Amino acid sequence: MATAHVFIATSLDGFIARPDGSLDWLLQRDHAGEDHGYTDFMADKDAIVMGHGTYTTVADMKPWPYDRPAYVLTKTLAGTPVPESQQGKVFFLDLTPQELLAKLAREQVQKVYVDGGKLVQSFLREGLVQDMVITTVPVLIGAGRPLFGALAKDIDLELVSSQRFPSGMVQCKYRVLP
Amino acid sequence: MATAHVFIATSLDGFIARPDGSLDWLLQRDHAGEDHGYTDFMADKDAIVMGHGTYTTVADMKPWPYDRPAYVLTKTLAGTPVPESQQGKVFFLDLTPQELLAKLAREQVQKVYVDGGKLVQSFLREGLVQDMVITTVPVLIGAGRPLFGALAKDIDLELVSSQRFPSGMVQCKYRVLP
Repeated sequence: MATAHVFIATSLDGFIARPDGSLDWLLQRDHAGEDHGYTDFMADKDAIVMGHGTYTTVADMKPWPYDRPAYVLTKTLAGTPVPESQQGKVFFLDLTPQELLAKLAREQVQKVYVDGGKLVQSFLREGLVQDMVITTVPVLIGAGRPLFGALAKDIDLELVSSQRFPSGMVQCKYRVLP
Repeated sequence: MATAHVFIATSLDGFIARPDGSLDWLLQRDHAGEDHGYTDFMADKDAIVMGHGTYTTVADMKPWPYDRPAYVLTKTLAGTPVPESQQGKVFFLDLTPQELLAKLAREQVQKVYVDGGKLVQSFLREGLVQDMVITTVPVLIGAGRPLFGALAKDIDLELVSSQRFPSGMVQCKYRVLP
């Protein structure tokens, strides 16, 4: 199976976006030129996986922001045509996380970046996340789309590294223990 | 007014206790002898404030664990007698956070340690927290008593310090910005 990796920013109270999806709280604290390691993180990733919700928030971006194949796990869009400007770059699939990772492994894809709260939660629940880089933004926003969700059992983590940035963001890398 | 200060541990998914109040996930990851700075933190605190829920979890501890006056904000217990072994140490009060801090200031109390999720949330909502030391435990527990809650508006924080421990806990100190 391909392995799944998370790289995401959250408010200190655990939200990755406001209830309406907006990221103003994140963007206004993002120091210009402060490198949070996204480029390094993506360097060894072969593909991106996102859910329907995350796809919706990026679907209209021009140019398309990803230089890796993006697999969108969506019952709704699976079987419908991908917008012309995204053809060959975006793939709508009605697969479970496990099915997707097995399919990608058969296609020689090894490492996958998982984006979006609901999909991260699904991958975590199925024990499919290998590691997570979580950047905590120094703000409480009180409500929004949560990074984490309900679990059938605890997930034990190992802290790999921790780094603070001049902006006040703190980035921790965790390995998910079996 | 006296100032209010938070020192608390949370799972990575933002819970300070399981739904039944248990802390096994925290205690089993607490390396013997690892000093998370609680003693230093308490050194300049004059009193402890807790809610009814937190008082209930510590009420039967013998000996009583705190060497500072403990003010319990509780409508239910206010006016009832404090258990004999806690007399002079525990005070039941039906006050708002603001009323408590004003009362304590009149009694020359300057710095107060606020304990417990609901009370931390009340103090935050009323703009009464000066700083927070938050120790993040490397585990996802999926459900429980949340550290943070709903807010009328964003609360902007300044990262003061960040420290990692051999146990994998990461401790960040935040100042609450006005």
